[in-house]
Amino acid sequence: MPTHSAPLLLASLQNQRIKDVIKLNKRAARDQRRVTVVEGWREATRALAAGIVPVEAFLCADLLGENFAPVLHQIYASGIQPASVFNTTPAVFAKLAYRGESGGILLVVPYFSRRLTELHLTATPLLLVIEGAEKPGNLGAILRTADAVGVDAVILVENTHDDATDLHNPNTIRAALGATFTVPVAAASATATREFLNAHAVRTVATTPDATVTYWDADLRGPLAILLGSEAHGLSDPWLATAHVQVQMPMHGAMDSLNLATATAVMLYESLRQRSRPTLPPPDPT
Amino acid sequence: MPTHSAPLLLASLQNQRIKDVIKLNKRAARDQRRVTVVEGWREATRALAAGIVPVEAFLCADLLGENFAPVLHQIYASGIQPASVFNTTPAVFAKLAYRGESGGILLVVPYFSRRLTELHLTATPLLLVIEGAEKPGNLGAILRTADAVGVDAVILVENTHDDATDLHNPNTIRAALGATFTVPVAAASATATREFLNAHAVRTVATTPDATVTYWDADLRGPLAILLGSEAHGLSDPWLATAHVQVQMPMHGAMDSLNLATATAVMLYESLRQRSRPTLPPPDPT
Repeated sequence: MPTHSAPLLLASLQNQRIKDVIKLNKRAARDQRRVTVVEGWREATRALAAGIVPVEAFLCADLLGENFAPVLHQIYASGIQPASVFNTTPAVFAKLAYRGESGGILLVVPYFSRRLTELHLTATPLLLVIEGAEKPGNLGAILRTADAVGVDAVILVENTHDDATDLHNPNTIRAALGATFTVPVAAASATATREFLNAHAVRTVATTPDATVTYWDADLRGPLAILLGSEAHGLSDPWLATAHVQVQMPMHGAMDSLNLATATAVMLYESLRQRSRPTLPPPDPT
Repeated sequence: MPTHSAPLLLASLQNQRIKDVIKLNKRAARDQRRVTVVEGWREATRALAAGIVPVEAFLCADLLGENFAPVLHQIYASGIQPASVFNTTPAVFAKLAYRGESGGILLVVPYFSRRLTELHLTATPLLLVIEGAEKPGNLGAILRTADAVGVDAVILVENTHDDATDLHNPNTIRAALGATFTVPVAAASATATREFLNAHAVRTVATTPDATVTYWDADLRGPLAILLGSEAHGLSDPWLATAHVQVQMPMHGAMDSLNLATATAVMLYESLRQRSRPTLPPPDPT
Protein backbone atom coordinates (compact mmCIF):
# COMPACT_ATOMS: atom_id res chain seq x y z
CA MET A 1 0.00 0.00 0.00
CA PRO A 2 1.59 3.26 -1.13
CA THR A 3 1.69 6.06 1.38
CA HIS A 4 0.68 9.56 0.47
CA SER A 5 1.25 12.87 2.11
CA ALA A 6 -1.80 14.38 3.76
CA PRO A 7 -4.09 16.02 1.21
CA LEU A 8 -3.98 19.77 0.84
CA LEU A 9 -6.53 21.59 2.97
CA LEU A 10 -8.72 24.02 1.02
CA ALA A 11 -10.14 26.64 3.36
CA SER A 12 -11.04 29.49 1.00
CA LEU A 13 -14.22 29.85 -0.99
CA GLN A 14 -12.18 31.91 -3.43
CA ASN A 15 -10.09 28.93 -4.46
CA GLN A 16 -10.47 28.40 -8.20
CA ARG A 17 -10.91 24.63 -7.83
CA ILE A 18 -13.87 25.20 -5.51
CA LYS A 19 -15.39 27.70 -7.92
CA ASP A 20 -14.99 25.26 -10.80
CA VAL A 21 -16.83 22.50 -8.92
CA ILE A 22 -19.69 24.80 -8.04
CA LYS A 23 -20.03 25.69 -11.74
CA LEU A 24 -20.83 22.03 -12.42
CA ASN A 25 -24.38 22.58 -11.16
CA LYS A 26 -25.00 23.89 -14.70
CA ARG A 27 -25.40 21.34 -17.46
CA ALA A 28 -23.47 23.50 -19.93
CA ALA A 29 -20.42 23.44 -17.65
CA ARG A 30 -20.73 19.66 -17.18
CA ASP A 31 -21.08 19.04 -20.89
CA GLN A 32 -18.13 21.28 -21.70
CA ARG A 33 -15.75 19.46 -19.35
CA ARG A 34 -17.59 16.11 -19.64
CA VAL A 35 -17.40 15.63 -15.87
CA THR A 36 -20.03 15.61 -13.14
CA VAL A 37 -20.32 15.50 -9.37
CA VAL A 38 -20.97 12.42 -7.22
CA GLU A 39 -21.83 13.17 -3.60
CA GLY A 40 -22.40 10.93 -0.63
CA TRP A 41 -20.72 7.82 0.62
CA ARG A 42 -23.12 5.30 -0.91
CA GLU A 43 -22.96 6.88 -4.35
CA ALA A 44 -19.20 7.49 -4.24
CA THR A 45 -18.53 3.91 -3.15
CA ARG A 46 -20.59 2.55 -6.03
CA ALA A 47 -18.74 4.80 -8.47
CA LEU A 48 -15.35 3.62 -7.20
CA ALA A 49 -16.48 -0.01 -7.21
CA ALA A 50 -17.47 0.42 -10.85
CA GLY A 51 -13.88 1.31 -11.64
CA ILE A 52 -14.47 5.00 -12.17
CA VAL A 53 -11.31 7.05 -11.62
CA PRO A 54 -12.26 10.46 -10.22
CA VAL A 55 -10.74 13.58 -11.70
CA GLU A 56 -10.81 15.23 -8.28
CA ALA A 57 -11.92 14.23 -4.78
CA PHE A 58 -13.00 16.63 -2.03
CA LEU A 59 -13.25 15.27 1.49
CA CYS A 60 -14.09 16.95 4.77
CA ALA A 61 -12.11 15.40 7.61
CA ASP A 62 -14.25 17.18 10.22
CA LEU A 63 -17.42 15.63 8.79
CA LEU A 64 -15.91 12.19 8.16
CA GLY A 65 -14.35 11.85 11.61
CA GLU A 66 -12.76 8.44 12.10
CA ASN A 67 -13.89 7.43 8.59
CA PHE A 68 -11.50 9.95 7.06
CA ALA A 69 -8.44 7.66 6.91
CA PRO A 70 -10.18 4.62 5.37
CA VAL A 71 -12.09 6.82 2.93
CA LEU A 72 -8.87 8.52 1.90
CA HIS A 73 -7.27 5.12 1.36
CA GLN A 74 -10.11 3.98 -0.86
CA ILE A 75 -9.98 7.18 -2.90
CA TYR A 76 -6.21 6.83 -3.47
CA ALA A 77 -6.74 3.18 -4.45
CA SER A 78 -8.98 4.26 -7.34
CA GLY A 79 -5.95 5.43 -9.27
CA ILE A 80 -6.74 9.12 -8.88
CA GLN A 81 -3.85 11.57 -9.18
CA PRO A 82 -2.84 12.03 -5.51
CA ALA A 83 -2.44 15.78 -6.02
CA SER A 84 -6.14 15.93 -6.98
CA VAL A 85 -7.35 14.78 -3.55
CA PHE A 86 -8.27 17.61 -1.18
CA ASN A 87 -9.39 18.06 2.37
CA THR A 88 -11.81 20.93 2.97
CA THR A 89 -13.11 22.89 5.91
CA PRO A 90 -16.79 22.32 6.81
CA ALA A 91 -17.59 25.81 5.47
CA VAL A 92 -16.00 25.06 2.11
CA PHE A 93 -17.58 21.62 1.92
CA ALA A 94 -21.02 23.07 2.67
CA LYS A 95 -20.55 25.41 -0.27
CA LEU A 96 -19.45 22.55 -2.55
CA ALA A 97 -22.16 20.10 -1.59
CA TYR A 98 -25.15 20.06 -3.86
CA ARG A 99 -27.20 18.52 -1.07
CA GLY A 100 -27.03 18.67 2.69
CA GLU A 101 -26.44 15.01 3.52
CA SER A 102 -23.32 14.43 1.46
CA GLY A 103 -21.46 13.28 4.54
CA GLY A 104 -18.09 14.74 3.69
CA ILE A 105 -17.29 13.16 0.33
CA LEU A 106 -17.66 14.60 -3.15
CA LEU A 107 -16.06 13.27 -6.31
CA VAL A 108 -15.69 14.91 -9.70
CA VAL A 109 -15.89 12.03 -12.19
CA PRO A 110 -15.71 11.73 -15.98
CA TYR A 111 -18.95 11.15 -17.87
CA PHE A 112 -19.67 7.44 -17.58
CA SER A 113 -22.30 6.66 -20.23
CA ARG A 114 -21.16 4.01 -22.68
CA ARG A 115 -21.24 3.64 -26.42
CA LEU A 116 -23.48 0.93 -27.81
CA THR A 117 -20.37 -0.97 -28.90
CA GLU A 118 -19.21 -1.05 -25.27
CA LEU A 119 -22.28 -2.99 -24.09
CA HIS A 120 -21.87 -6.69 -23.37
CA LEU A 121 -25.11 -8.61 -23.89
CA THR A 122 -25.99 -12.01 -22.46
CA ALA A 123 -27.39 -14.78 -24.63
CA THR A 124 -30.97 -13.75 -23.83
CA PRO A 125 -30.65 -10.05 -23.21
CA LEU A 126 -33.24 -7.84 -21.59
CA LEU A 127 -32.75 -4.20 -22.55
CA LEU A 128 -34.59 -1.07 -21.56
CA VAL A 129 -34.81 1.75 -24.08
CA ILE A 130 -36.08 5.12 -22.81
CA GLU A 131 -36.81 7.96 -25.19
CA GLY A 132 -36.77 11.32 -23.44
CA ALA A 133 -37.08 10.80 -19.67
CA GLU A 134 -37.93 14.31 -18.50
CA LYS A 135 -37.24 14.23 -14.78
CA PRO A 136 -34.01 13.31 -12.98
CA GLY A 137 -36.04 11.70 -10.19
CA ASN A 138 -37.76 9.43 -12.68
CA LEU A 139 -34.55 8.43 -14.42
CA GLY A 140 -32.96 7.67 -11.05
CA ALA A 141 -35.89 5.47 -10.03
CA ILE A 142 -35.76 3.73 -13.42
CA LEU A 143 -32.09 2.89 -12.95
CA ARG A 144 -32.83 1.40 -9.51
CA THR A 145 -35.48 -0.85 -11.09
CA ALA A 146 -33.15 -1.76 -13.95
CA ASP A 147 -30.53 -2.80 -11.40
CA ALA A 148 -33.05 -4.87 -9.41
CA VAL A 149 -34.40 -6.68 -12.46
CA GLY A 150 -30.91 -7.26 -13.79
CA VAL A 151 -31.26 -5.79 -17.26
CA ASP A 152 -28.29 -6.09 -19.59
CA ALA A 153 -28.32 -2.36 -20.23
CA VAL A 154 -30.37 0.79 -20.34
CA ILE A 155 -30.19 2.79 -23.55
CA LEU A 156 -31.13 6.46 -23.35
CA VAL A 157 -32.20 7.64 -26.74
CA GLU A 158 -32.11 11.22 -27.88
CA ASN A 159 -35.50 12.60 -28.70
CA THR A 160 -36.56 15.57 -30.74
CA HIS A 161 -37.64 17.56 -27.70
CA ASP A 162 -35.24 19.68 -25.74
CA ASP A 163 -36.39 18.50 -22.34
CA ALA A 164 -34.45 15.25 -22.14
CA THR A 165 -32.85 14.55 -18.79
CA ASP A 166 -29.20 13.72 -18.84
CA LEU A 167 -27.78 10.77 -17.01
CA HIS A 168 -25.07 12.97 -15.53
CA ASN A 169 -27.39 15.42 -13.79
CA PRO A 170 -26.46 15.31 -10.08
CA ASN A 171 -30.17 14.92 -9.25
CA THR A 172 -30.32 11.80 -11.41
CA ILE A 173 -27.28 10.38 -9.66
CA ARG A 174 -28.81 11.19 -6.28
CA ALA A 175 -32.22 9.66 -7.11
CA ALA A 176 -30.51 6.50 -8.39
CA LEU A 177 -28.78 6.00 -5.02
CA GLY A 178 -25.77 4.62 -6.87
CA ALA A 179 -27.57 2.55 -9.52
CA THR A 180 -26.11 4.92 -12.10
CA PHE A 181 -22.90 2.95 -11.56
CA THR A 182 -24.23 -0.60 -11.26
CA VAL A 183 -26.27 -0.67 -14.51
CA PRO A 184 -24.59 -0.27 -17.89
CA VAL A 185 -26.13 2.82 -19.46
CA ALA A 186 -25.57 3.86 -23.05
CA ALA A 187 -26.62 7.09 -24.73
CA ALA A 188 -27.19 6.87 -28.46
CA SER A 189 -29.20 8.16 -31.37
CA ALA A 190 -32.47 6.42 -32.23
CA THR A 191 -31.10 5.24 -35.56
CA ALA A 192 -27.95 3.74 -34.08
CA THR A 193 -30.01 2.09 -31.33
CA ARG A 194 -32.39 0.45 -33.80
CA GLU A 195 -29.43 -0.83 -35.84
CA PHE A 196 -27.86 -2.19 -32.67
CA LEU A 197 -31.05 -3.99 -31.63
CA ASN A 198 -31.49 -5.45 -35.11
CA ALA A 199 -27.90 -6.61 -35.23
CA HIS A 200 -28.41 -8.48 -31.96
CA ALA A 201 -31.76 -9.97 -33.06
CA VAL A 202 -33.54 -8.33 -30.13
CA ARG A 203 -37.36 -8.15 -30.31
CA THR A 204 -38.76 -4.72 -29.46
CA VAL A 205 -41.88 -4.13 -27.38
CA ALA A 206 -43.28 -0.60 -27.58
CA THR A 207 -45.39 0.57 -24.66
CA THR A 208 -48.10 2.91 -25.90
CA PRO A 209 -51.66 3.71 -24.82
CA ASP A 210 -52.87 3.14 -28.39
CA ALA A 211 -51.97 -0.57 -28.43
CA THR A 212 -54.67 -3.25 -28.37
CA VAL A 213 -52.55 -5.96 -26.69
CA THR A 214 -52.33 -5.84 -22.91
CA TYR A 215 -48.71 -6.08 -21.78
CA TRP A 216 -49.26 -9.25 -19.72
CA ASP A 217 -50.62 -11.05 -22.79
CA ALA A 218 -47.45 -10.40 -24.78
CA ASP A 219 -44.45 -12.70 -24.62
CA LEU A 220 -41.80 -10.74 -22.75
CA ARG A 221 -39.20 -13.53 -22.70
CA GLY A 222 -36.29 -14.09 -25.04
CA PRO A 223 -33.95 -11.41 -26.36
CA LEU A 224 -36.06 -8.33 -25.74
CA ALA A 225 -35.93 -4.55 -25.59
CA ILE A 226 -38.74 -2.79 -23.74
CA LEU A 227 -39.35 0.69 -25.17
CA LEU A 228 -40.96 3.58 -23.33
CA GLY A 229 -41.32 7.22 -24.30
CA SER A 230 -41.73 10.34 -22.23
CA GLU A 231 -44.92 11.07 -20.32
CA ALA A 232 -45.48 14.22 -22.35
CA HIS A 233 -44.83 12.89 -25.84
CA GLY A 234 -44.85 9.09 -25.76
CA LEU A 235 -42.72 7.09 -28.16
CA SER A 236 -41.97 8.75 -31.47
CA ASP A 237 -43.40 7.31 -34.68
CA PRO A 238 -40.24 5.53 -35.91
CA TRP A 239 -40.17 3.45 -32.72
CA LEU A 240 -43.87 2.62 -32.98
CA ALA A 241 -43.54 1.75 -36.67
CA THR A 242 -40.61 -0.61 -36.21
CA ALA A 243 -41.58 -2.31 -32.92
CA HIS A 244 -42.27 -6.03 -33.13
CA VAL A 245 -45.26 -5.63 -30.83
CA GLN A 246 -47.10 -2.73 -29.23
CA VAL A 247 -48.59 -3.21 -25.78
CA GLN A 248 -50.66 -1.07 -23.44
CA MET A 249 -51.10 -1.00 -19.71
CA PRO A 250 -54.76 -1.09 -18.57
CA MET A 251 -55.97 2.27 -17.27
CA HIS A 252 -59.25 1.96 -15.37
CA GLY A 253 -59.34 5.42 -13.82
CA ALA A 254 -59.77 9.03 -14.82
CA MET A 255 -56.12 9.75 -15.58
CA ASP A 256 -54.61 9.25 -19.04
CA SER A 257 -51.03 8.39 -18.14
CA LEU A 258 -48.78 6.80 -15.57
CA ASN A 259 -45.56 8.12 -14.15
CA LEU A 260 -42.73 6.97 -16.45
CA ALA A 261 -40.74 5.27 -13.68
CA THR A 262 -43.76 3.29 -12.45
CA ALA A 263 -44.74 2.21 -15.97
CA THR A 264 -41.16 1.07 -16.59
CA ALA A 265 -41.14 -0.96 -13.37
CA VAL A 266 -44.39 -2.73 -14.23
CA MET A 267 -43.04 -3.70 -17.66
CA LEU A 268 -39.64 -4.87 -16.41
CA TYR A 269 -41.06 -6.93 -13.54
CA GLU A 270 -43.64 -8.58 -15.81
CA SER A 271 -40.78 -9.61 -18.10
CA LEU A 272 -38.90 -10.96 -15.08
CA ARG A 273 -42.01 -12.85 -13.93
CA GLN A 274 -42.47 -14.47 -17.32
CA ARG A 275 -38.78 -15.34 -17.56
CA SER A 276 -39.00 -17.12 -14.19
CA ARG A 277 -41.52 -19.61 -15.58
CA PRO A 278 -40.18 -20.87 -18.90
CA THR A 279 -42.47 -23.91 -18.89
CA LEU A 280 -45.63 -21.85 -18.74
CA PRO A 281 -45.67 -19.64 -21.82
CA PRO A 282 -48.28 -16.92 -21.56
CA PRO A 283 -50.89 -16.60 -24.29
CA ASP A 284 -49.51 -14.33 -26.97
CA PRO A 285 -52.13 -13.02 -29.36
CA THR A 286 -49.53 -11.31 -31.53
CA MET B 1 -77.39 30.19 -14.63
CA PRO B 2 -76.99 32.87 -11.99
CA THR B 3 -75.08 35.95 -13.01
CA HIS B 4 -72.37 37.39 -10.84
CA SER B 5 -70.68 40.71 -10.82
CA ALA B 6 -67.10 40.69 -12.11
CA PRO B 7 -64.69 39.37 -9.46
CA LEU B 8 -62.69 41.91 -7.53
CA LEU B 9 -59.26 42.61 -9.04
CA LEU B 10 -56.41 42.20 -6.58
CA ALA B 11 -53.42 44.20 -7.75
CA SER B 12 -51.37 44.66 -4.58
CA LEU B 13 -48.91 42.21 -3.12
CA GLN B 14 -49.69 43.78 0.24
CA ASN B 15 -53.25 42.49 0.18
CA GLN B 16 -53.79 40.30 3.25
CA ARG B 17 -55.57 37.57 1.27
CA ILE B 18 -52.54 37.26 -1.00
CA LYS B 19 -50.21 37.09 1.98
CA ASP B 20 -52.36 34.40 3.56
CA VAL B 21 -52.23 32.21 0.46
CA ILE B 22 -48.46 32.54 0.22
CA LYS B 23 -48.22 31.37 3.83
CA LEU B 24 -49.79 28.07 2.79
CA ASN B 25 -46.45 26.94 1.37
CA LYS B 26 -45.69 25.99 4.99
CA ARG B 27 -47.26 22.79 6.32
CA ALA B 28 -47.90 24.35 9.72
CA ALA B 29 -50.05 27.05 8.11
CA ARG B 30 -51.93 24.47 6.05
CA ASP B 31 -52.54 22.24 9.04
CA GLN B 32 -53.73 25.16 11.14
CA ARG B 33 -56.36 26.27 8.62
CA ARG B 34 -56.86 22.77 7.17
CA VAL B 35 -56.75 24.16 3.66
CA THR B 36 -54.26 23.78 0.82
CA VAL B 37 -53.55 25.14 -2.65
CA VAL B 38 -54.49 23.53 -5.97
CA GLU B 39 -52.84 25.11 -9.00
CA GLY B 40 -53.25 24.51 -12.69
CA TRP B 41 -56.23 23.85 -14.88
CA ARG B 42 -55.99 20.06 -14.95
CA GLU B 43 -55.70 19.77 -11.19
CA ALA B 44 -58.34 22.42 -10.47
CA THR B 45 -60.79 20.80 -12.87
CA ARG B 46 -60.35 17.43 -11.18
CA ALA B 47 -60.89 19.00 -7.78
CA LEU B 48 -64.10 20.71 -8.90
CA ALA B 49 -65.32 17.53 -10.62
CA ALA B 50 -64.79 15.69 -7.34
CA GLY B 51 -67.27 18.04 -5.71
CA ILE B 52 -64.73 20.05 -3.76
CA VAL B 53 -66.00 23.54 -2.92
CA PRO B 54 -63.06 25.95 -2.84
CA VAL B 55 -62.67 28.36 0.03
CA GLU B 56 -61.17 30.92 -2.34
CA ALA B 57 -60.35 31.08 -6.04
CA PHE B 58 -57.70 33.29 -7.63
CA LEU B 59 -57.77 33.71 -11.40
CA CYS B 60 -55.66 35.78 -13.71
CA ALA B 61 -57.71 37.07 -16.62
CA ASP B 62 -54.62 38.18 -18.52
CA LEU B 63 -53.17 34.66 -18.35
CA LEU B 64 -56.47 32.88 -19.03
CA GLY B 65 -57.41 35.01 -22.05
CA GLU B 66 -60.59 33.76 -23.69
CA ASN B 67 -60.78 30.93 -21.14
CA PHE B 68 -61.44 33.41 -18.35
CA ALA B 69 -65.24 33.53 -18.77
CA PRO B 70 -65.84 29.74 -18.93
CA VAL B 71 -63.38 29.13 -16.08
CA LEU B 72 -65.13 31.73 -13.98
CA HIS B 73 -68.47 30.08 -14.70
CA GLN B 74 -67.16 26.68 -13.63
CA ILE B 75 -65.74 28.14 -10.43
CA TYR B 76 -69.02 29.81 -9.50
CA ALA B 77 -70.87 26.56 -10.27
CA SER B 78 -68.86 24.78 -7.57
CA GLY B 79 -70.90 26.52 -4.88
CA ILE B 80 -68.06 28.79 -3.78
CA GLN B 81 -69.01 32.04 -2.05
CA PRO B 82 -69.01 34.49 -4.99
CA ALA B 83 -67.23 37.11 -2.89
CA SER B 84 -64.31 34.66 -2.50
CA VAL B 85 -63.51 34.62 -6.23
CA PHE B 86 -60.81 37.07 -7.27
CA ASN B 87 -59.12 38.25 -10.42
CA THR B 88 -55.43 39.10 -10.08
CA THR B 89 -52.83 40.97 -12.06
CA PRO B 90 -50.09 38.83 -13.64
CA ALA B 91 -47.62 40.21 -11.09
CA VAL B 92 -49.81 39.18 -8.17
CA PHE B 93 -50.56 35.79 -9.70
CA ALA B 94 -46.86 35.12 -10.27
CA LYS B 95 -46.30 35.77 -6.57
CA LEU B 96 -49.15 33.43 -5.59
CA ALA B 97 -48.26 30.60 -7.89
CA TYR B 98 -46.19 27.87 -6.34
CA ARG B 99 -45.05 26.80 -9.79
CA GLY B 100 -44.57 28.60 -13.05
CA GLU B 101 -47.02 26.76 -15.26
CA SER B 102 -50.18 27.28 -13.20
CA GLY B 103 -51.91 28.87 -16.18
CA GLY B 104 -53.86 31.48 -14.28
CA ILE B 105 -55.92 29.42 -11.85
CA LEU B 106 -55.30 28.72 -8.20
CA LEU B 107 -57.82 27.37 -5.68
CA VAL B 108 -57.65 27.27 -1.91
CA VAL B 109 -59.51 24.09 -0.95
CA PRO B 110 -60.40 22.38 2.34
CA TYR B 111 -58.40 19.30 3.27
CA PHE B 112 -59.93 16.43 1.33
CA SER B 113 -58.68 13.24 2.97
CA ARG B 114 -61.48 11.00 4.20
CA ARG B 115 -62.18 9.13 7.38
CA LEU B 116 -62.14 5.35 7.13
CA THR B 117 -65.89 5.36 7.76
CA GLU B 118 -66.35 7.53 4.67
CA LEU B 119 -64.83 4.91 2.33
CA HIS B 120 -67.19 2.87 0.18
CA LEU B 121 -65.78 -0.55 -0.65
CA THR B 122 -66.84 -2.80 -3.51
CA ALA B 123 -67.65 -6.48 -2.95
CA THR B 124 -64.05 -7.49 -3.75
CA PRO B 125 -62.07 -4.47 -2.68
CA LEU B 126 -58.47 -3.75 -3.57
CA LEU B 127 -56.91 -1.34 -1.09
CA LEU B 128 -53.48 0.21 -0.91
CA VAL B 129 -52.02 0.97 2.51
CA ILE B 130 -48.89 3.12 2.62
CA GLU B 131 -46.98 3.65 5.84
CA GLY B 132 -44.82 6.76 5.69
CA ALA B 133 -44.33 7.83 2.07
CA GLU B 134 -41.44 10.26 2.37
CA LYS B 135 -41.50 12.17 -0.86
CA PRO B 136 -44.35 14.18 -2.38
CA GLY B 137 -43.28 13.09 -5.86
CA ASN B 138 -43.57 9.44 -4.84
CA LEU B 139 -46.97 9.86 -3.24
CA GLY B 140 -48.22 11.69 -6.33
CA ALA B 141 -46.98 8.91 -8.63
CA ILE B 142 -48.58 6.32 -6.32
CA LEU B 143 -51.95 8.06 -6.57
CA ARG B 144 -51.71 8.06 -10.38
CA THR B 145 -51.12 4.30 -10.30
CA ALA B 146 -53.94 3.79 -7.79
CA ASP B 147 -56.27 5.67 -10.14
CA ALA B 148 -55.16 3.62 -13.15
CA VAL B 149 -55.56 0.27 -11.40
CA GLY B 150 -58.91 1.32 -9.93
CA VAL B 151 -58.26 0.67 -6.26
CA ASP B 152 -61.17 1.18 -3.88
CA ALA B 153 -59.08 3.50 -1.73
CA VAL B 154 -55.61 4.46 -0.61
CA ILE B 155 -55.06 4.59 3.14
CA LEU B 156 -52.14 6.68 4.38
CA VAL B 157 -51.08 5.43 7.78
CA GLU B 158 -49.24 7.49 10.31
CA ASN B 159 -45.85 6.14 11.14
CA THR B 160 -43.59 6.69 14.06
CA HIS B 161 -41.11 8.75 12.04
CA ASP B 162 -41.50 12.45 11.53
CA ASP B 163 -40.78 12.40 7.83
CA ALA B 164 -44.20 11.36 6.58
CA THR B 165 -45.41 13.22 3.51
CA ASP B 166 -48.82 14.72 3.72
CA LEU B 167 -51.42 14.29 1.04
CA HIS B 168 -52.11 18.01 1.07
CA ASN B 169 -48.57 19.11 0.22
CA PRO B 170 -48.83 21.17 -3.00
CA ASN B 171 -45.98 19.11 -4.46
CA THR B 172 -47.98 15.92 -3.87
CA ILE B 173 -50.99 17.45 -5.60
CA ARG B 174 -48.79 18.55 -8.48
CA ALA B 175 -47.09 15.18 -8.91
CA ALA B 176 -50.46 13.43 -8.85
CA LEU B 177 -51.64 15.53 -11.83
CA GLY B 178 -55.14 15.52 -10.34
CA ALA B 179 -55.29 11.89 -9.12
CA THR B 180 -55.45 13.29 -5.58
CA PHE B 181 -59.09 14.01 -6.43
CA THR B 182 -60.02 10.90 -8.39
CA VAL B 183 -58.90 8.29 -5.84
CA PRO B 184 -60.51 8.10 -2.38
CA VAL B 185 -57.70 8.70 0.09
CA ALA B 186 -58.07 8.20 3.83
CA ALA B 187 -55.62 9.14 6.55
CA ALA B 188 -55.82 7.06 9.69
CA SER B 189 -53.88 5.57 12.56
CA ALA B 190 -52.38 2.12 12.11
CA THR B 191 -54.64 0.64 14.77
CA ALA B 192 -57.81 2.06 13.28
CA THR B 193 -56.73 0.89 9.83
CA ARG B 194 -56.13 -2.69 10.99
CA GLU B 195 -59.53 -2.73 12.69
CA PHE B 196 -61.13 -1.42 9.52
CA LEU B 197 -59.45 -4.09 7.36
CA ASN B 198 -60.44 -6.82 9.78
CA ALA B 199 -64.03 -5.61 9.93
CA HIS B 200 -64.23 -5.81 6.14
CA ALA B 201 -62.56 -9.26 5.99
CA VAL B 202 -59.77 -7.89 3.82
CA ARG B 203 -56.63 -10.04 3.50
CA THR B 204 -53.40 -8.11 3.99
CA VAL B 205 -50.23 -8.62 1.93
CA ALA B 206 -47.11 -7.06 3.41
CA THR B 207 -44.31 -6.21 0.98
CA THR B 208 -40.96 -6.68 2.71
CA PRO B 209 -37.48 -7.73 1.56
CA ASP B 210 -37.37 -10.36 4.33
CA ALA B 211 -40.24 -12.43 2.93
CA THR B 212 -39.61 -15.83 1.33
CA VAL B 213 -42.63 -15.77 -0.99
CA THR B 214 -42.21 -13.94 -4.31
CA TYR B 215 -45.09 -11.55 -4.90
CA TRP B 216 -46.17 -13.20 -8.16
CA ASP B 217 -46.56 -16.55 -6.36
CA ALA B 218 -49.02 -15.10 -3.85
CA ASP B 219 -52.74 -14.91 -4.53
CA LEU B 220 -53.45 -11.21 -5.00
CA ARG B 221 -57.15 -11.62 -5.85
CA GLY B 222 -60.16 -11.33 -3.58
CA PRO B 223 -60.68 -8.67 -0.92
CA LEU B 224 -57.11 -7.47 -0.47
CA ALA B 225 -55.00 -4.72 1.01
CA ILE B 226 -51.45 -4.32 -0.30
CA LEU B 227 -49.15 -2.87 2.36
CA LEU B 228 -45.92 -0.98 1.72
CA GLY B 229 -43.66 0.90 4.08
CA SER B 230 -41.24 3.73 3.50
CA GLU B 231 -37.98 3.20 1.63
CA ALA B 232 -35.99 4.19 4.69
CA HIS B 233 -37.77 2.17 7.35
CA GLY B 234 -39.96 -0.45 5.65
CA LEU B 235 -43.18 -1.64 7.27
CA SER B 236 -43.30 -1.45 11.03
CA ASP B 237 -43.45 -4.64 13.08
CA PRO B 238 -47.19 -4.58 13.89
CA TRP B 239 -47.99 -4.63 10.17
CA LEU B 240 -45.55 -7.46 9.52
CA ALA B 241 -46.84 -9.45 12.49
CA THR B 242 -50.49 -9.19 11.50
CA ALA B 243 -50.24 -9.53 7.71
CA HIS B 244 -51.86 -12.62 6.20
CA VAL B 245 -48.91 -13.09 3.89
CA GLN B 246 -45.51 -11.46 3.42
CA VAL B 247 -44.10 -11.17 -0.08
CA GLN B 248 -40.86 -9.89 -1.56
CA MET B 249 -39.92 -8.51 -4.92
CA PRO B 250 -36.88 -10.20 -6.50
CA MET B 251 -33.77 -8.02 -6.42
CA HIS B 252 -31.04 -9.32 -8.73
CA GLY B 253 -28.75 -6.31 -8.65
CA ALA B 254 -26.46 -4.48 -6.29
CA MET B 255 -29.09 -2.20 -4.77
CA ASP B 256 -31.10 -3.14 -1.70
CA SER B 257 -34.33 -1.27 -2.31
CA LEU B 258 -36.67 0.00 -4.98
CA ASN B 259 -38.28 3.39 -5.22
CA LEU B 260 -41.56 3.26 -3.26
CA ALA B 261 -43.73 4.40 -6.16
CA THR B 262 -42.28 1.81 -8.53
CA ALA B 263 -42.64 -1.02 -5.99
CA THR B 264 -46.25 -0.01 -5.41
CA ALA B 265 -46.98 -0.02 -9.14
CA VAL B 266 -45.53 -3.51 -9.59
CA MET B 267 -47.67 -4.87 -6.73
CA LEU B 268 -50.90 -3.18 -7.86
CA TYR B 269 -50.52 -4.21 -11.51
CA GLU B 270 -49.74 -7.82 -10.54
CA SER B 271 -52.95 -7.86 -8.53
CA LEU B 272 -54.81 -6.42 -11.53
CA ARG B 273 -53.25 -9.07 -13.81
CA GLN B 274 -54.30 -11.90 -11.51
CA ARG B 275 -57.81 -10.48 -11.14
CA SER B 276 -58.16 -10.38 -14.92
CA ARG B 277 -57.78 -14.18 -15.10
CA PRO B 278 -60.04 -15.71 -12.46
CA THR B 279 -59.98 -19.12 -14.14
CA LEU B 280 -56.21 -19.45 -13.85
CA PRO B 281 -55.35 -19.28 -10.15
CA PRO B 282 -51.66 -18.75 -9.61
CA PRO B 283 -49.79 -21.20 -7.42
CA ASP B 284 -49.95 -19.96 -3.85
CA PRO B 285 -47.44 -21.59 -1.55
CA THR B 286 -48.87 -19.82 1.50
